[in-house]
Amino acid sequence: MRADGTIGNALYGNPDGHGKRSRAASLALRGRSMVSKKVATSGFERSASMAFKTITVKTENEQQMIDITQQVRLVVRESGVKSGVCRIFIPHTTAAVTINENADPNVRRDILTRLEQVAPSDGTYLHTEGNSHAHIKSSLVGSSVSVFVEAGQLVLGTWQSVFLCDFDGPRTRNVMVRVSDG
Amino acid sequence: MRADGTIGNALYGNPDGHGKRSRAASLALRGRSMVSKKVATSGFERSASMAFKTITVKTENEQQMIDITQQVRLVVRESGVKSGVCRIFIPHTTAAVTINENADPNVRRDILTRLEQVAPSDGTYLHTEGNSHAHIKSSLVGSSVSVFVEAGQLVLGTWQSVFLCDFDGPRTRNVMVRVSDG
Amino acid sequence: MRADGTIGNALYGNPDGHGKRSRAASLALRGRSMVSKKVATSGFERSASMAFKTITVKTENEQQMIDITQQVRLVVRESGVKSGVCRIFIPHTTAAVTINENADPNVRRDILTRLEQVAPSDGTYLHTEGNSHAHIKSSLVGSSVSVFVEAGQLVLGTWQSVFLCDFDGPRTRNVMVRVSDG
Repeated sequence: MRADGTIGNALYGNPDGHGKRSRAASLALRGRSMVSKKVATSGFERSASMAFKTITVKTENEQQMIDITQQVRLVVRESGVKSGVCRIFIPHTTAAVTINENADPNVRRDILTRLEQVAPSDGTYLHTEGNSHAHIKSSLVGSSVSVFVEAGQLVLGTWQSVFLCDFDGPRTRNVMVRVSDG
Repeated sequence: MRADGTIGNALYGNPDGHGKRSRAASLALRGRSMVSKKVATSGFERSASMAFKTITVKTENEQQMIDITQQVRLVVRESGVKSGVCRIFIPHTTAAVTINENADPNVRRDILTRLEQVAPSDGTYLHTEGNSHAHIKSSLVGSSVSVFVEAGQLVLGTWQSVFLCDFDGPRTRNVMVRVSDG
Repeated sequence: MRADGTIGNALYGNPDGHGKRSRAASLALRGRSMVSKKVATSGFERSASMAFKTITVKTENEQQMIDITQQVRLVVRESGVKSGVCRIFIPHTTAAVTINENADPNVRRDILTRLEQVAPSDGTYLHTEGNSHAHIKSSLVGSSVSVFVEAGQLVLGTWQSVFLCDFDGPRTRNVMVRVSDG
């Protein structure tokens, strides 16, 4: 639920359709847009030691892994939860969320390249919208992750960051974050 | 725990063995049994704002993704939880659960086809029971998902549904659902 | 947080770097070290019906799936939680956690073999540390699982065990376990 009280289609309506731009000519795995990505937060709600918030991320490549750890850390801090769990959920069927190395951007490129070999974006599929590869990658990587919260902080390994994976961008993607002491 | 108080082997005994019928001649990725699948719910237990329930699903193909969203929504409604998390867990090692597109059934077929290329059901494996491919797919897709609950409703994107994936059917599969306000 | 009150880098510092021994000559998928693996538990903390504990596992092969179910069951028992959820999180980017068959060790070997075909350890990658395959496998299998707790016991199917997957061993790996009644 957002701060304005809306939920459902108003918030998540057609999450795989809006914000879609014309498909660029080639698969962009370069991740060069990391610098210019725009991340906005909205819809904050807090009750006792709990927070539910939707982060909006504008992706800029067809396939891209964007580090959203700082945005997630902010939600954890605002939640007031000292010890608990932070869950991240992607309400899209051609995107995913994963935790992996944040140091060398080549790791992200290698992940996207191998996923592309498993499900090529120019492969043959029954689904005729041209993004079946993205649906497949979404189920392989997964739509949610959980990270522990201790001492009011997200508990990640030194090299770990949380990444939104957009397999059918560029689009405006929603990332739902829930922090609780449960 | 079920309504009759039993738990453990009585409930989950040999979940990968019972209900198994003789293997059909060819891999069925057609999903045509979607209409005739039978879904039953049992074992409801409620305490404060929490529910734990086991849904039983009879699959009808060797490999199949069955939409169980409505059954999960029912558990959420019965739980009385207004804001929290719904967790779905598959107590089988040759099945999985994922969230993906509900509109075009071809998406499910494409997912199963690509998984079959990664781990062919007629491939060569050390495990001699003939279902190693199903174990591999189970670990790739995963045995659990979490979905948020807000305003007493499961919060899914417009195109998202929850799917039980049976990679070694047809069988009777259990889907465990837990709803809590934590 | 550990019993000694430390958290963060002191605990998770360079989790992908320490304990790394020289790389053995060949990929070891034999799992023969299952017997001699050492598992230690430390850092227990309990508050009401909750527990957070870090299990330390020394892996002994380059790629290995180690059954950690008994160690997780111990944390659940010590937690005092009767009905809730047990979450397991891996704070490493070249390891993962999954649930799969515990009876025939060949299932684990088949899983590792197929993952190796998707992302060969001797493949060509942009990341120059030689372990990009392990990062890819980590995102495919995932860094966390959740298992329900009922009647004070971990609720797993008959054939299910929880496995730490080390894709870039041998190393000392941390497995974070959190049990709560939420």
